[in-house]
Amino acid sequence: MKNKPLVGIIMGSDSDFNVMKQAADVCREFGISHEVKIVSAHRTPNHVKEYAANAHQRGIKVIIAGAGGAAHLPGFTASHTVLPVIGVPVKSKSLDGLDSLLSIVQMPSGVPVATVAIDNAKNAAILAVQILAVSDKNLYKKLIDYKKKMEKESLAKNKKLKLI
Amino acid sequence: MKNKPLVGIIMGSDSDFNVMKQAADVCREFGISHEVKIVSAHRTPNHVKEYAANAHQRGIKVIIAGAGGAAHLPGFTASHTVLPVIGVPVKSKSLDGLDSLLSIVQMPSGVPVATVAIDNAKNAAILAVQILAVSDKNLYKKLIDYKKKMEKESLAKNKKLKLI
Amino acid sequence: MKNKPLVGIIMGSDSDFNVMKQAADVCREFGISHEVKIVSAHRTPNHVKEYAANAHQRGIKVIIAGAGGAAHLPGFTASHTVLPVIGVPVKSKSLDGLDSLLSIVQMPSGVPVATVAIDNAKNAAILAVQILAVSDKNLYKKLIDYKKKMEKESLAKNKKLKLI
Amino acid sequence: MKNKPLVGIIMGSDSDFNVMKQAADVCREFGISHEVKIVSAHRTPNHVKEYAANAHQRGIKVIIAGAGGAAHLPGFTASHTVLPVIGVPVKSKSLDGLDSLLSIVQMPSGVPVATVAIDNAKNAAILAVQILAVSDKNLYKKLIDYKKKMEKESLAKNKKLKLI
Amino acid sequence: MKNKPLVGIIMGSDSDFNVMKQAADVCREFGISHEVKIVSAHRTPNHVKEYAANAHQRGIKVIIAGAGGAAHLPGFTASHTVLPVIGVPVKSKSLDGLDSLLSIVQMPSGVPVATVAIDNAKNAAILAVQILAVSDKNLYKKLIDYKKKMEKESLAKNKKLKLI
Amino acid sequence: MKNKPLVGIIMGSDSDFNVMKQAADVCREFGISHEVKIVSAHRTPNHVKEYAANAHQRGIKVIIAGAGGAAHLPGFTASHTVLPVIGVPVKSKSLDGLDSLLSIVQMPSGVPVATVAIDNAKNAAILAVQILAVSDKNLYKKLIDYKKKMEKESLAKNKKLKLI
Amino acid sequence: MKNKPLVGIIMGSDSDFNVMKQAADVCREFGISHEVKIVSAHRTPNHVKEYAANAHQRGIKVIIAGAGGAAHLPGFTASHTVLPVIGVPVKSKSLDGLDSLLSIVQMPSGVPVATVAIDNAKNAAILAVQILAVSDKNLYKKLIDYKKKMEKESLAKNKKLKLI
Amino acid sequence: MKNKPLVGIIMGSDSDFNVMKQAADVCREFGISHEVKIVSAHRTPNHVKEYAANAHQRGIKVIIAGAGGAAHLPGFTASHTVLPVIGVPVKSKSLDGLDSLLSIVQMPSGVPVATVAIDNAKNAAILAVQILAVSDKNLYKKLIDYKKKMEKESLAKNKKLKLI
Repeated sequence: MKNKPLVGIIMGSDSDFNVMKQAADVCREFGISHEVKIVSAHRTPNHVKEYAANAHQRGIKVIIAGAGGAAHLPGFTASHTVLPVIGVPVKSKSLDGLDSLLSIVQMPSGVPVATVAIDNAKNAAILAVQILAVSDKNLYKKLIDYKKKMEKESLAKNKKLKLI
Repeated sequence: MKNKPLVGIIMGSDSDFNVMKQAADVCREFGISHEVKIVSAHRTPNHVKEYAANAHQRGIKVIIAGAGGAAHLPGFTASHTVLPVIGVPVKSKSLDGLDSLLSIVQMPSGVPVATVAIDNAKNAAILAVQILAVSDKNLYKKLIDYKKKMEKESLAKNKKLKLI
Repeated sequence: MKNKPLVGIIMGSDSDFNVMKQAADVCREFGISHEVKIVSAHRTPNHVKEYAANAHQRGIKVIIAGAGGAAHLPGFTASHTVLPVIGVPVKSKSLDGLDSLLSIVQMPSGVPVATVAIDNAKNAAILAVQILAVSDKNLYKKLIDYKKKMEKESLAKNKKLKLI
Repeated sequence: MKNKPLVGIIMGSDSDFNVMKQAADVCREFGISHEVKIVSAHRTPNHVKEYAANAHQRGIKVIIAGAGGAAHLPGFTASHTVLPVIGVPVKSKSLDGLDSLLSIVQMPSGVPVATVAIDNAKNAAILAVQILAVSDKNLYKKLIDYKKKMEKESLAKNKKLKLI
Repeated sequence: MKNKPLVGIIMGSDSDFNVMKQAADVCREFGISHEVKIVSAHRTPNHVKEYAANAHQRGIKVIIAGAGGAAHLPGFTASHTVLPVIGVPVKSKSLDGLDSLLSIVQMPSGVPVATVAIDNAKNAAILAVQILAVSDKNLYKKLIDYKKKMEKESLAKNKKLKLI
Repeated sequence: MKNKPLVGIIMGSDSDFNVMKQAADVCREFGISHEVKIVSAHRTPNHVKEYAANAHQRGIKVIIAGAGGAAHLPGFTASHTVLPVIGVPVKSKSLDGLDSLLSIVQMPSGVPVATVAIDNAKNAAILAVQILAVSDKNLYKKLIDYKKKMEKESLAKNKKLKLI
Repeated sequence: MKNKPLVGIIMGSDSDFNVMKQAADVCREFGISHEVKIVSAHRTPNHVKEYAANAHQRGIKVIIAGAGGAAHLPGFTASHTVLPVIGVPVKSKSLDGLDSLLSIVQMPSGVPVATVAIDNAKNAAILAVQILAVSDKNLYKKLIDYKKKMEKESLAKNKKLKLI
Repeated sequence: MKNKPLVGIIMGSDSDFNVMKQAADVCREFGISHEVKIVSAHRTPNHVKEYAANAHQRGIKVIIAGAGGAAHLPGFTASHTVLPVIGVPVKSKSLDGLDSLLSIVQMPSGVPVATVAIDNAKNAAILAVQILAVSDKNLYKKLIDYKKKMEKESLAKNKKLKLI
């Protein structure tokens, strides 16, 4: 990505990468410049702060943060910026993602995190595109096309069904 | 509100109003034009569709949708628009809000809903402001001020504590 | 199926087909004309509406709808028809089916969905047959026979047990 | 009710009556003959069996069964009849209705219970009306009218909202 | 088993046998005559009733009942007998055994089921032996020996540990 | 109670007494000698051990143990005796009794606790009577009478219903 | 408190004070110098960092942190210090404390939080005393006395019971 | 380990060893003398008591106890000592660790257990080191180094990421 990134994709650990790379894929598909970083709320808190506090100045418009277990990264990021922060609850080894979800979504008044479904980094990126599209007509059109394509693909599966 | 609304606040039932009015309060605080409507995914689905499908043309930039139980309003709205849709899980009579939360947040790939904490319509509105602020420097500054004010108020509580 | 279908079996995605085909199997076993379609509450909402709104005119008597996660298809269908809608919560990748179940069963007053067990499309179809049998003596007899056969098969397993 | 009842409303205990009477109210509203009885899966199992086994002969077309905790009444009823059985999970003193819901909805293959939302006996009755309407055009029209009325009432709440 | 069985081990389906055979193994280990049967609360309710109602006359002293999902067998059995009924929640395909557990343990006042851990048919049988031992000194001694053996085996594992 | 107690009713704290006294009431109703004691697994572990280890010698036949939260009393008691131990999960201030239930019922192989419903000390005592009745014909008859009385009372509620 | 505080008690909001003041009470009872502060992980993150990072230098030995909902304060504190951090999950308005508990206890490898029961700030302080007592014989003796007093009080309740 | 152990690592069963050995590994890494033992709250309660009651005299400063299901070992240990007891909830075969977690963390007032994440024995040991470091400057420095190393390793993963 040569352009200055508009979307920052961060995650707590490289074990989250398999899930979070879907977010990068969607950004690429929509032609949105982005960056991917590992910053841990618990292991590198100062880097999270620095990342969150400087993101706006660096031109970042939306931050996508994925984490699992006691998943504090999205909320911690949101405490250091007023940019929209999208949280991806990554399923961890126990409790089937419930801990990750509740740790991310149940934020206190004043500091929201826009939470998406467990392990659904793809939706996090689509939401980021929707946010950017609020002031970008071209992107808005791409989203309309994306939605139409989804509709077509969904309907097309009916043909496949008939062959079963 | 004389201006064309930028934020649409919708809810499934008037019983959700006590929670959802907090969203309107925040919009007012930030000087953002908004509208409040009751449209039910299950009782008035055609109006939801119409609302969602026309929102963009009417100048709406972000939709906040609150619902409880099998809370389909946010997801149903998101299926008819590519505007960012923020979902507020409203606690219903049983299960302490878990049903509302899961029905809203666990959306399938392609159709995200930006979910906030149970009953936290205030955060939904702050998130809406953050989204609008992506392309509105003035609003961005207001958010920075809001954050500073929150910080001050939080610290000020320590004085109160000493008097206890 | 040459006859006009009496039972409509719909699902949100082709990934639900492995579960939902059990419903078609039961219909076939009872000689009930049926159809199987993929219509997504979130990706093809207009087709869901069309399907639900026209089902009665097309001769459909009961609709079986299966979906997972934030499973809105059954409720969304029920919002557009007064035909009985049977919901099958399909287990999704996280939360072991709890999200699917709560999203389907916790419908608000006025718009019921007849919910069956997680992944139990077979029971959805038996329920559909029971509903049709309310006004079809022949079908009622078949259900009685089916119940007797189940009873026999269950008892017969005791013999198998003795050989272990 | 002078006519032979078409809908049987049963419950495990008189403490369930506050919830279950909503089902009787809906039947009355639709002019459907019905009866209300207390039969307990655990305290009067023989009466449940008798009730379920003879219901069809007595002209009952649909059974609505409400129970809480380890709520076996709906499933137990379904084991003795092939009439459609609708289960209402009644919230009990602990666990916020989750025990009632799971005990009713998670029925094994072969013996479905059409489960509605926790404490939502109203929806159970609407579902019963929908089932009867499959072969009763007059009732079908009443349901259409009911749905339209609901729609109107829901929309009308918007006016009330403006006055707040 | 030539002797008249003292312990009746019943289960809802042959799929429960892998779990429930542990109960038979413990009975055998303690030299307690027992029988194993498949009777389903939902598929063969009359046989469950017959089994439960006649058990006392046939010399059965304790019944162990295992079932999964909406697990009604133990409670249904308890409704037809005053013998102690021990319930084994068998983990089913979804919800990790929570549905089975709550369906069995949350019995209403008047009709208890002695519930053991999920899938722990072994403990059900030990509990049955403890119940029989209330009036059987020989059995009581065997239980004391069993406990001592368990203690020894547990302590012996420390030696194994040192070799790791 | 002048006679040597047959049933020992123990609880972790006097705050459990409101729930646990129901067990004493049932014992009284059946004419079974019993004793009530507060012994805490965590505050007076040596007394729990002493109580459990000596219970058999003192003539106790069944122990009923109630506790809440991380409810260890029933399991701890069971570790020091081979008498049947019945556990009553007492609902505590958070989590609606789920913690109490799981802490009591999920015992490891070798050391069962006969668990009853949350806060249902009445059922614990009925279960204790059922256990004693295994070798006491008189008690067995009383249980049959109790069951018949319950049945009558349950049926009688139907008359009350008609007056509503 | 004139002495330099050994225990720092922090909480996310003044609404947590009713719970957290129990921790201060216990410290006072054991004569341990302490301080109480409101610092919010989300509203005043820099103050949390400062607090945590400087605590050791200021002579703090143990930090007790209480928070509710997406309760990040304990984990965030632990990310900035290697002092033992004790987390108190404060029950919030929804989900009965489960969100607070999971957000605090499920910390990733490398950054533990010593979690106590929901709303149990008293235990947090006792744990803090136990930690300080590892190197303070006097405090160790006080804990022994405290335990004995608890034991006595628990036993004494049996007398009260007899009077009921 | 030639030195007198400072940390006692105990577990309920050898099946917990795979999880609990991580605690031993961390102790080794920090050069802290420790011992590993299998003592079961339910199978060898007297040895647990003995272990806990004598630990202080033997020079043990902190006890780490791991157990699963109705996991009583940590709480039982804490009832017999005033040393800090750290509990590790070991995931068992059902319920994904929720039973283990609640059985350990929800301790009553007066007897805390410092609970860490499900299966995270590594964090239990780090917490033990933090507790010992309260009065051991050398250990405190090692913890600071450990934290720095973690930070470096976490940041280094970003380089790896670029190569993907």
